Amino acid sequence: LRARPGSQDAASVIEIVDAPLPDPGPGQLRIRNIAMSVDPYMRLCLDGAAGPAAAFALGEALPGMAIGIVEESRVADIAAGDVVSSMFGWREAFVADADMVEKLNAATGLPPRAFLSVLGGTGFTAYVGMMHLGRPQPGETVLVSGAGGAVGSIAAQLARMQGAKTLALAGSDAKCAWLRGAGIDHAINYRVVEDLDGALSAAAPEGLDLYFDNVGGGQFETAISLARSRARFVECGMISTYVAERSQAPRNLVQIIAKSITIYGFTVVDFMDLREWFLADMTGWIRDGHIRWEETVYEGLDRAPGALDDMFRGANLGKMIVSLDAAP
Amino acid sequence: LRARPGSQDAASVIEIVDAPLPDPGPGQLRIRNIAMSVDPYMRLCLDGAAGPAAAFALGEALPGMAIGIVEESRVADIAAGDVVSSMFGWREAFVADADMVEKLNAATGLPPRAFLSVLGGTGFTAYVGMMHLGRPQPGETVLVSGAGGAVGSIAAQLARMQGAKTLALAGSDAKCAWLRGAGIDHAINYRVVEDLDGALSAAAPEGLDLYFDNVGGGQFETAISLARSRARFVECGMISTYVAERSQAPRNLVQIIAKSITIYGFTVVDFMDLREWFLADMTGWIRDGHIRWEETVYEGLDRAPGALDDMFRGANLGKMIVSLDAAP
Repeated sequence: LRARPGSQDAASVIEIVDAPLPDPGPGQLRIRNIAMSVDPYMRLCLDGAAGPAAAFALGEALPGMAIGIVEESRVADIAAGDVVSSMFGWREAFVADADMVEKLNAATGLPPRAFLSVLGGTGFTAYVGMMHLGRPQPGETVLVSGAGGAVGSIAAQLARMQGAKTLALAGSDAKCAWLRGAGIDHAINYRVVEDLDGALSAAAPEGLDLYFDNVGGGQFETAISLARSRARFVECGMISTYVAERSQAPRNLVQIIAKSITIYGFTVVDFMDLREWFLADMTGWIRDGHIRWEETVYEGLDRAPGALDDMFRGANLGKMIVSLDAAP
Repeated sequence: LRARPGSQDAASVIEIVDAPLPDPGPGQLRIRNIAMSVDPYMRLCLDGAAGPAAAFALGEALPGMAIGIVEESRVADIAAGDVVSSMFGWREAFVADADMVEKLNAATGLPPRAFLSVLGGTGFTAYVGMMHLGRPQPGETVLVSGAGGAVGSIAAQLARMQGAKTLALAGSDAKCAWLRGAGIDHAINYRVVEDLDGALSAAAPEGLDLYFDNVGGGQFETAISLARSRARFVECGMISTYVAERSQAPRNLVQIIAKSITIYGFTVVDFMDLREWFLADMTGWIRDGHIRWEETVYEGLDRAPGALDDMFRGANLGKMIVSLDAAP
């Protein structure tokens, strides 16, 4: 990371550099990544806009989740060829202490990349936000924004699975078709609908009991205006506000008082005690056919910065992933 | 109410009119008000900015809480001379069904006007927001904005009573002195301090566990920036945003995600099931000397609109009340 991008593309401030790869010492592993996660929060961390503690350091590689194959191990319980997940981010290969990575559970029978999406940070985020904070009840009405994305697509299905009437906002007809195929009651393409409030009101004249937000800004504002008294809001992301010049807070925020709305802002790292429950629950739901997931895959380290920018243009259906050639 | 004031003074759109007072029918009372409540939310309802359901009707008297003396009763359990509270608002006298008013509990030994403030809507609001939603714990750090007002002055004392380190923001040195006298650990005059973030950080370098907001806008924004991870926010009021042209949402709202902040917006009418607990608790706390309260009293119906405007200029310490001459 060479500079804070502000309103510029991320690709303009991220440079690919060659760095020497040390030999692993005792207790260490050498890992070659096969897939890297591209997540909306990364854009915020490039600018440090989520607060100084969450700012990515200038001059360093971008942190984030990745899946890799162990090439060389200096510990007893991990062998060359094992597949591990890590948080060392956008690198083709790296050396790290073995206790800083996690061996994937092969018993799930799921492909390793599932541990970047439905069983990874985004699936876990959807689980914490919807099941632990939002807690949709049968017969309630739930709206999910950014529902074509990695978190929203899972969150919407979780609400539907709980018996809630589920509405989804997404940015393309293809995303809406996918959501309908996954059982979502109403999927609305917010880019083409002329009157978003009217379309949502027609689909849910009873108003919203729960809003799961990935977008912020105008869609957050619309959800406030359509919320029922005592509605719950789960603030998982505000992707529409992450690029500085597009930033916009809801103008009707004061209505959270008159409507007694509770807003749960959350970042999943504060809920790691739920992770074992998540892995058990989600693995079961996938096995039983309740949850589908989707990936959008770019090939090669050099496409990672552009993948982040393209995600902010809505190019991804489901999880945005950069795949790397595992052959050295 | 003749028009929506927008950014104009409330006094410019409120007219005092003479209206005939009918004789009470069976089941009715004729009541002469002795004191009327002046509350910040009323300003919002003048404009309808809290949503259409909370808009005051044009051409009608302003609703709100008042205390009055029964002059004529056509029911068995209320007699002439009894003191009652009602929600019929800014009127010198009125006729109403007896089941729409509430006889005050004389056993408290408190003056009737206390039922407009510490035992009325504002005391109840402080109780619900601080004790039921915010739930300060011993050793936590709590910030209250608008702490010189009717709700904030009680909310701050409740936090202190629970053993929390309590910081208060108020708009005059006199208000700050009153708060210190009531045991609040740090009271800061936000109008004169040059660096509000710095002053709060110096008083609470550990950060905020709980923020009780009556002000919104810039003070809400400051509280977000100083909040600890997993802080709770109680959104009771956003008085700085109620007059349209001063409206301002916090620009750092996105940090509620990175910090896993929960925001409880609330209006006290959604928590009426707690009212009996409130009356019992608050009466006891007053009796035991834990809670003090203050009033700012204007005399005469004609001063009510100006009292509302003056409250938005910070003229009140504690509860703003309009006192009426009870003699017909």
